[in-house]
Amino acid sequence: MTESGPRVRMVPPGDDRERLVCPECQYVAYRNPLIVVGSVAEWQGRILLCRRAIEPCRGLWTLPAGFMEENETTLEGAAREAHEEAGATIEIGALLGIYQLPRISQVHFFYRARLLSPEIAAGIESLEVGLFEWADIPWLKLAFPTVRWALADFDARRGQSDFPPAGNPAGYPPGSEANWSPDQPFTPD
Amino acid sequence: MTESGPRVRMVPPGDDRERLVCPECQYVAYRNPLIVVGSVAEWQGRILLCRRAIEPCRGLWTLPAGFMEENETTLEGAAREAHEEAGATIEIGALLGIYQLPRISQVHFFYRARLLSPEIAAGIESLEVGLFEWADIPWLKLAFPTVRWALADFDARRGQSDFPPAGNPAGYPPGSEANWSPDQPFTPD
Repeated sequence: MTESGPRVRMVPPGDDRERLVCPECQYVAYRNPLIVVGSVAEWQGRILLCRRAIEPCRGLWTLPAGFMEENETTLEGAAREAHEEAGATIEIGALLGIYQLPRISQVHFFYRARLLSPEIAAGIESLEVGLFEWADIPWLKLAFPTVRWALADFDARRGQSDFPPAGNPAGYPPGSEANWSPDQPFTPD
Repeated sequence: MTESGPRVRMVPPGDDRERLVCPECQYVAYRNPLIVVGSVAEWQGRILLCRRAIEPCRGLWTLPAGFMEENETTLEGAAREAHEEAGATIEIGALLGIYQLPRISQVHFFYRARLLSPEIAAGIESLEVGLFEWADIPWLKLAFPTVRWALADFDARRGQSDFPPAGNPAGYPPGSEANWSPDQPFTPD
C-alpha cells in the first residue's frame, strides 16, 4: 500500500505552526488534544474494572474510559464508556480529577459514579469485567497511570463533596507519566 | 476550486460510527471534541479583555481564550492565549468553570489568573485590548456565551478557593447556548 493522507509537515497559509498536510488534496489535518472520559463507578463499595481486550495494555485492568465523541458532554461520554465497555448503567457524580498528558496530547477526566444496578457484561473492548472490593483491586495489573491516579483520588475524597478536581499527583508532573509503572509507590495529589 | 479532502460520510472498518473519509486517499478524519482554554485575568481589580479582530464575532469583546494546542496542558494553553492575544504575562490560578458545548463539540476551560504586570498589547487576533473595571465591562458587546459565564463565575467566587469548577449556568443546559444573546439576564451556576 502506498503512503497516503496528510503526511507532509508544513505551516499552512494564515497559520503559525506546522501541521500535517496531504500533498494530493491539500487537506490540513489539524491535530488537537484529545479528551478521555472515564469513571470510578461503585456498587455497594465495590469498584467496576474492565480487563482490556485491545492494545495498548491488552490483558491489564482499567477503569471504564475512552475518547470523548462529538456531540456529547464529558459526563455523557463517561457514562457511555461504562455502558460500552462494561454493560453498566451509571449515574455520574463529582469530577475527581483532570489529568494532563501533554506528551501524548491528552486530557483525562475521571468522575465519581454510582452503578444503578450490579448487572455488568464485558463489551467488545473488554475480556472480562468485575466489581472489586478495594483490597482486591489488581493494583499491579493496572493498565494506565491515570487509572491508578483516579483510584487514589477517589479514595482520598471518600465522603467529601464540593472539591476541586485533582491534578496529576505529586511526583508525576505533566509529561512524566511515561516513567510510570504499576509497582511504584506514589502520593496522590 | 474542486472539492477535496475527507468529505464522504461512512463507517470505517472496525469502527462503529460514521466518519468523514477522503475518497481519493482513504484518509479518515476523526473529529473529536476540541478544548478551548482561557482566563479571567486580573490586574488590581481590572479584567483583561480583547476586542476580536477575526470572525466569528469580529469587533466584540472576549476573554483571552483559544484552542488548546498539542503538547501543552490546559493551564499552559490558557497562559499562551493571554500572551498571543493580549501580550500579557499571567499566572494561572483556580479552575473557574468547565463549560460543555456538545452542539459544536467543544469543552471550554476558564481559569482565574493574575497579570504579572499591566503591560498588554493587542496581538494579531485582537483589534485592541484593555483592562476594565468590573462596572465598565462591555456586557452588551461580549462575543460568546462562555465569556459571560466565566465572568459571572469569577464574580461569584471572589475570595473563595478549593471549589469545584462551575458548569453551564442555570437556564443554559448543554446544547442550549445557541439561544444566548448578550442582553439576556441569566443566573450563574
